[in-house]
Amino acid sequence: MGDQYEVSEAGVEALTIPSLRWEEPPEGPVLVILDQTRLPAEEVELVCTDVPALVGAIRTLAVRGAPLLGIAGAYGVALAAARGFDVEEAVEALAQARPTAVNLGYGVRRAAASYREAFGEGGAQAAAAAALAEARAVHAEDIEASTRMAEHGLALLGELLPGGGHRILTHCNTGALVSGGEGTALAVALAAHRAGELRRLWVDETRPLLQGARLTAYEAARTGMAYTVLSDGAAGSLFAAGEVDAVLIGADRIAADGAVANKVGSYPLAVLARYHHVPFVVVAPTSTVDLETKEGADIEVEQRPGREVTEFSLPFVQEPGAEAGTGIPVAPLGAQAYNPAFDVTPAELVTAIVTEAGVVSPVTREGLAEVCSTSRWSKSRSGNGMMAE
Amino acid sequence: MGDQYEVSEAGVEALTIPSLRWEEPPEGPVLVILDQTRLPAEEVELVCTDVPALVGAIRTLAVRGAPLLGIAGAYGVALAAARGFDVEEAVEALAQARPTAVNLGYGVRRAAASYREAFGEGGAQAAAAAALAEARAVHAEDIEASTRMAEHGLALLGELLPGGGHRILTHCNTGALVSGGEGTALAVALAAHRAGELRRLWVDETRPLLQGARLTAYEAARTGMAYTVLSDGAAGSLFAAGEVDAVLIGADRIAADGAVANKVGSYPLAVLARYHHVPFVVVAPTSTVDLETKEGADIEVEQRPGREVTEFSLPFVQEPGAEAGTGIPVAPLGAQAYNPAFDVTPAELVTAIVTEAGVVSPVTREGLAEVCSTSRWSKSRSGNGMMAE
Repeated sequence: MGDQYEVSEAGVEALTIPSLRWEEPPEGPVLVILDQTRLPAEEVELVCTDVPALVGAIRTLAVRGAPLLGIAGAYGVALAAARGFDVEEAVEALAQARPTAVNLGYGVRRAAASYREAFGEGGAQAAAAAALAEARAVHAEDIEASTRMAEHGLALLGELLPGGGHRILTHCNTGALVSGGEGTALAVALAAHRAGELRRLWVDETRPLLQGARLTAYEAARTGMAYTVLSDGAAGSLFAAGEVDAVLIGADRIAADGAVANKVGSYPLAVLARYHHVPFVVVAPTSTVDLETKEGADIEVEQRPGREVTEFSLPFVQEPGAEAGTGIPVAPLGAQAYNPAFDVTPAELVTAIVTEAGVVSPVTREGLAEVCSTSRWSKSRSGNGMMAE
Repeated sequence: MGDQYEVSEAGVEALTIPSLRWEEPPEGPVLVILDQTRLPAEEVELVCTDVPALVGAIRTLAVRGAPLLGIAGAYGVALAAARGFDVEEAVEALAQARPTAVNLGYGVRRAAASYREAFGEGGAQAAAAAALAEARAVHAEDIEASTRMAEHGLALLGELLPGGGHRILTHCNTGALVSGGEGTALAVALAAHRAGELRRLWVDETRPLLQGARLTAYEAARTGMAYTVLSDGAAGSLFAAGEVDAVLIGADRIAADGAVANKVGSYPLAVLARYHHVPFVVVAPTSTVDLETKEGADIEVEQRPGREVTEFSLPFVQEPGAEAGTGIPVAPLGAQAYNPAFDVTPAELVTAIVTEAGVVSPVTREGLAEVCSTSRWSKSRSGNGMMAE
């Protein structure tokens, strides 16, 4: 178990299709999204011509993942502006599409701020151009941030696990699919893989929507990592067997006290990691840090429909005759389900937070504030702070 | 969340069809099994006319659950004897059908011992009758044990949680489906429900085969318990929110040191329960205690096919046109999976083990040996001990 060692020599790209791109065909600008609900069975693109379509794609998780939501939000504002829709209405709709994802609001606010500023000076057309330029900047910065996080994360792994041959457990999906670049936690794992330091990537399947089994496995396979999928509940057995050297996860929102909201099932891993003295490392850009959320208890956790648990949904599988979006019931009819999208891990269980601006470890309010103040986004952050309501 | 309070007034039976029964139609005796892989979508019975059919049903989990496997194993020996098959071959095949399930071997050995003893005295026909009588005895004792465990467990809950209004988290399925009676952990929850003491049953869906969402929810719905299904990874959020008063689970094998092998995902709950100072209670008949397995590390954990994780299997759903046993891939083709059926929780994380012969708490080697020696099965246990290899 976990003793195979495979390194791809092909140097395959993580994705053949970018997770998101802006296009300007003659009919007008569009945002093209790789529909993540259909992976790994098929690579289908969604073309969003307006904000309601984009909001729908965000809600159904066709486009998902903290950094990518920030980029999508920014382009969404640019799309509304370019097509002459009501930008303030678009801002509102986009920002509320998923309550826990702080990056979404961050990207939306940045594009909106550029739009408003340019509107006062040069009118609608200039404002639309400014919103698009800001969206492209958010996109470019995310690519850059991804690279920096991978570097910092790889160095941190080297310090924490000097023996090399890392066996990394991850949860949900945090790679190229969630980013303009190679992602957050998975970008670190990929860097370790490229450096010949990754012995095994343990991939939590991540119920209920199986982002691990579907998406992380898909990216791991494409990049040639040695990976193994497991039910979320089987992670305990790996810890008990000493098969996990570190846990690497992403984040959807980090409070000022260092509490980390991430995909449900992350907190149990943090508790297991603590019990087994295994490092628990969070990888996220500073745009995920929300200094206005004082502590973990203040983070609003999105509750998703119970049918994600009580039915097995088919959008991501190819079943002859089955309509996309239908579900096969797995629980008795009428069963109710508790389905929080995220959970919150307190700072005391987090070994380190890796950002593009550096590593915070131990995780303290002061350390987090400091790394945020040194990030290139600190200016836009404080600007946003004034605008946020 | 968790504040609803429902008590069924109908007094519905847990099951309309028994999970297992012996029948003697003119064509010869058969063992009739409720196919648990098809629940909750449909109630289908499997008629086993020989031991290979029964072994198949055990391997595919059509019949499952620690106590029920003991009963099935005993009847399997009786079936081989009654139909004139090679009994020793049947004993071997049945005992090895699932390596971790100690009750299976226990039931098989009891029926085989009666068969052999009677064979020496009265020949094949008397031996077949003796094997059947012993299987019926195992069955009857399990019903009785279930009642005693429910009583002891309810009393223990009263001591541990004097305030009443229990919010119980359970994993996998441990009710009437796994027993001649009302089961183990779920029998305790049902007793609490009948006593008006159950505020909420939190049902872990229990990946990969969803015995919680499919079977425990099915039993909870039929008996009118207030229940809520959740992804296994969401249990952490419930603990963090203070919504779990106790964890109740069953066991597939308990080592002499009190280590408990149970459905994979149990150990993470034990670690979470310890971290949150919540009682973690195991309910199992003394026939589940294997005093010959010295400690948890000696328990052989069954590894099941990876496709249970990487494919969503259809035996338990009704999908038009889908063949039973086919799977919908949810991970990329070629993905490998780690799929242990069980995990092992060390005694220090177990608050109490509730048996039909009394409660062991704290869980010590001595306490466990004592409760086993006072159980009605101690005689057959030592008899088996001599026979076991």
